[in-house]
Amino acid sequence: MMNTLFLDACLRKPVERTPVWMMRQAGRYLPEYRAVRAGTDFLTLCKTPELAAEVTIQPVDIIGVDAAIIFSDILVIPEAMGMELVMEESKGPRFPRPLRTRNDVESLKVQDPEKSLRYVMDALKQTKQALNGRVPLIGFSGSPWTLAAYMVDGGGSKDFPQAKRMMLDDPATFTSLLEKLAESVRYYLEAQLAAGADAVQIFDSWGGLLAPDHYRKWSLEWLHHIVSRMDKNGSPVILFSKGANHALKELSEIGAEVVGLDWTVDIGTVREEIGGTVALQGNLDPSVLYASPERIREEVRSVLRKFGQEPGHVFNLGHGITPGVPVAHARAFVDSVKEESARIRSGR
Amino acid sequence: MMNTLFLDACLRKPVERTPVWMMRQAGRYLPEYRAVRAGTDFLTLCKTPELAAEVTIQPVDIIGVDAAIIFSDILVIPEAMGMELVMEESKGPRFPRPLRTRNDVESLKVQDPEKSLRYVMDALKQTKQALNGRVPLIGFSGSPWTLAAYMVDGGGSKDFPQAKRMMLDDPATFTSLLEKLAESVRYYLEAQLAAGADAVQIFDSWGGLLAPDHYRKWSLEWLHHIVSRMDKNGSPVILFSKGANHALKELSEIGAEVVGLDWTVDIGTVREEIGGTVALQGNLDPSVLYASPERIREEVRSVLRKFGQEPGHVFNLGHGITPGVPVAHARAFVDSVKEESARIRSGR
Repeated sequence: MMNTLFLDACLRKPVERTPVWMMRQAGRYLPEYRAVRAGTDFLTLCKTPELAAEVTIQPVDIIGVDAAIIFSDILVIPEAMGMELVMEESKGPRFPRPLRTRNDVESLKVQDPEKSLRYVMDALKQTKQALNGRVPLIGFSGSPWTLAAYMVDGGGSKDFPQAKRMMLDDPATFTSLLEKLAESVRYYLEAQLAAGADAVQIFDSWGGLLAPDHYRKWSLEWLHHIVSRMDKNGSPVILFSKGANHALKELSEIGAEVVGLDWTVDIGTVREEIGGTVALQGNLDPSVLYASPERIREEVRSVLRKFGQEPGHVFNLGHGITPGVPVAHARAFVDSVKEESARIRSGR
Repeated sequence: MMNTLFLDACLRKPVERTPVWMMRQAGRYLPEYRAVRAGTDFLTLCKTPELAAEVTIQPVDIIGVDAAIIFSDILVIPEAMGMELVMEESKGPRFPRPLRTRNDVESLKVQDPEKSLRYVMDALKQTKQALNGRVPLIGFSGSPWTLAAYMVDGGGSKDFPQAKRMMLDDPATFTSLLEKLAESVRYYLEAQLAAGADAVQIFDSWGGLLAPDHYRKWSLEWLHHIVSRMDKNGSPVILFSKGANHALKELSEIGAEVVGLDWTVDIGTVREEIGGTVALQGNLDPSVLYASPERIREEVRSVLRKFGQEPGHVFNLGHGITPGVPVAHARAFVDSVKEESARIRSGR
């Protein structure tokens, strides 16, 4: 591995500058990505290893990020478990037959990801080969709660009322669903590490929709289930529970190496609270990338200064990069992190 | 005033049970509201005092809430300042000509709400008369930041990129916009109190989209501007900055009597931190109302127990009630708060 900054920072080893990557960095803001997508729908892209590898590497070449993240979608797991998944360009992903009953949940099967998600493993292997050690490769999965929310409501939602109803009115069925998902996620992450991923991230994108008590019981517990049982083989695990800022301390205590932060917390305050035990990933407001490069640099500097000079910071946005961001601004963001962090860490 | 529970709780006076109302309680979950709306579009309803009064009182009669909140919309202020406002049933509110330049902002006028928003004052007076002292009446406004976000982006958004761009790239123009809005909001709230409102709430619905530093500068400061200058005439002011949970302490220190909480914080923890200086309003997850009445009661009890027996709790949802909630569940929610809080506060 030529560039080990990302892995070193995940393990809180000293680095000469802060590594940086962006959630959704292989995405629509890149003309090269849109060119690939022009001929291919989203799911076909996920399922065609050579194309997935191609778009995964684009931001490494074009933007200069310090890690690649495999191009895929969190909803490939429910699909592999037997649910029909439809991707509509305008409406986002949808399960035409959402889970509503005990029988629905019982019909789901925990699969061997080496078979059911072979295409992800192939994409990882091809990406790894093409990267040729330039930067580490990150695998990922959705969290059990976040996947369950989609599977029960049938698609994206502001509040996932059906999932919350099942959670409250039929906790036994919902627990059974989360347990199957936790096992599926665990096997999936282990398979990704075996296929060449150097680290894995669990996206608990809807963790912030749960009240604190519900979060502990229906999301955190299952993240703990996964992290405590999985064979990490020395690779870092990143937990990103967007919006669940009431639970960062608890998140830091379940065995992951890195906790991801959205942009609504002060990374300096969080570092004081939990930075002694985990690395932190984050946390610039993605909307800052709409501002001028000069202003982006100021905002990057502010986040870097808040974190300080201790080891254990992976710079990232606090959420995925949005399609309307100019490529030059994404590049200005990454350059700013590299230059300003080198300056700060060298004491200049 | 026959039922002073709400006002007493706002002022942290002892009460025999916890008062309760629901954000968006005059809304689409009520068949009686939908019947009024069937013949009238949203803005006409806001601007027809007798109809606005009618739907404002519906939840008092039908659900038994302890306060009424005037039926209106936060975007009436930008409209009164000179922006064309369009309400499309499916897409939500929209400003066809959003603010983008210094000139756009300069063309906005701070108006006398007694004239420009006469219809709101008339609705308050008619409601007050019709309520005849049964329960207090709440007036409200959007916060400067939340209004500015809509006005610059031109409508609802997940991240308000244009507003954030103006904030970062042209802070002088954005400051000028916020100052005009703060003055408009202040006059508007004062006029509502003069027209009969017994309390006012400021909805900072998008406060949670700002990073902590940005929040302090672009939202909190302007809330402080309003609250510190307005003539409250003894009436409580409620601040609800949804999602800005990193700043609850600061919010509690700017002179409002009540701080509203969304459902992603533990109300017991927050009460320990700031309950000595302000009352708290909240904070049941609105999605709990999709669950069975038995389960709703358990969840209500859990929030009540967390708050404890100190004075200063106004029960509410952590966000507006959603259209799909059965009326019986809304009623079960309100009944549960009344019964369980009476039991807890009497020590039974």
